[in-house]
Amino acid sequence: MPDHVHMKNVLRRYVELFNAGDPAAVADLYADDAVIEDPVGKPPVTGRAAIEEFYTAAMSSGVRLALVGEPRASYADRAAMAFTARLPGLLIEGIEVMTFDEDGRVARMEAFWGPDDFGHPTGE
Amino acid sequence: MPDHVHMKNVLRRYVELFNAGDPAAVADLYADDAVIEDPVGKPPVTGRAAIEEFYTAAMSSGVRLALVGEPRASYADRAAMAFTARLPGLLIEGIEVMTFDEDGRVARMEAFWGPDDFGHPTGE
Repeated sequence: MPDHVHMKNVLRRYVELFNAGDPAAVADLYADDAVIEDPVGKPPVTGRAAIEEFYTAAMSSGVRLALVGEPRASYADRAAMAFTARLPGLLIEGIEVMTFDEDGRVARMEAFWGPDDFGHPTGE
Repeated sequence: MPDHVHMKNVLRRYVELFNAGDPAAVADLYADDAVIEDPVGKPPVTGRAAIEEFYTAAMSSGVRLALVGEPRASYADRAAMAFTARLPGLLIEGIEVMTFDEDGRVARMEAFWGPDDFGHPTGE
């Protein structure tokens, strides 16, 4: 089982690589058969190729992620982080939970944000 | 399926009732056969009576919860929140995910905090 230090480092790295605009590097954090539910309740994205496409599209929107506090681990194979996703004039506040496989890759990512977790920051 | 407004209200109410020191009222937010994993990876607490005992013990420690940002919903039956749990000299930073049943009660609560998600705030 991946340890808590590894899991938290992967979550931090995810945010860095996302903001660096590198969809292949973000996809490399995932297992080949990983599943993304972003947001939870919408159709999942499954497998390495679809995941890289998903991040390519997300990054092309210009969205930037910022951690809210540090990632939180657990005593099992899962870790979580709170974040903001910001575009000009739009702020999404979300939480992501990642489940790791034995090799330390992300097997499942679930993003929590719902119909009213959007804001329109003033001054933008 | 419970809607996002209901789920977020339950999460806010959970924090209020916890800080009011009312373990029975917190336990009433749960389904009769609900399961708590707090933290994730430790043995679960199952069922209404055990859940009330769990909160009675937690509240007796004097811990106080505070939301970090607003709760986040989803497009399914789950919602999440980031929080701090504070005792004199100790701060735990965590994330909780709650899964709701058809009646709008919490069927499962998973708390993410690991071996190094503790801090010792200065000045306490």
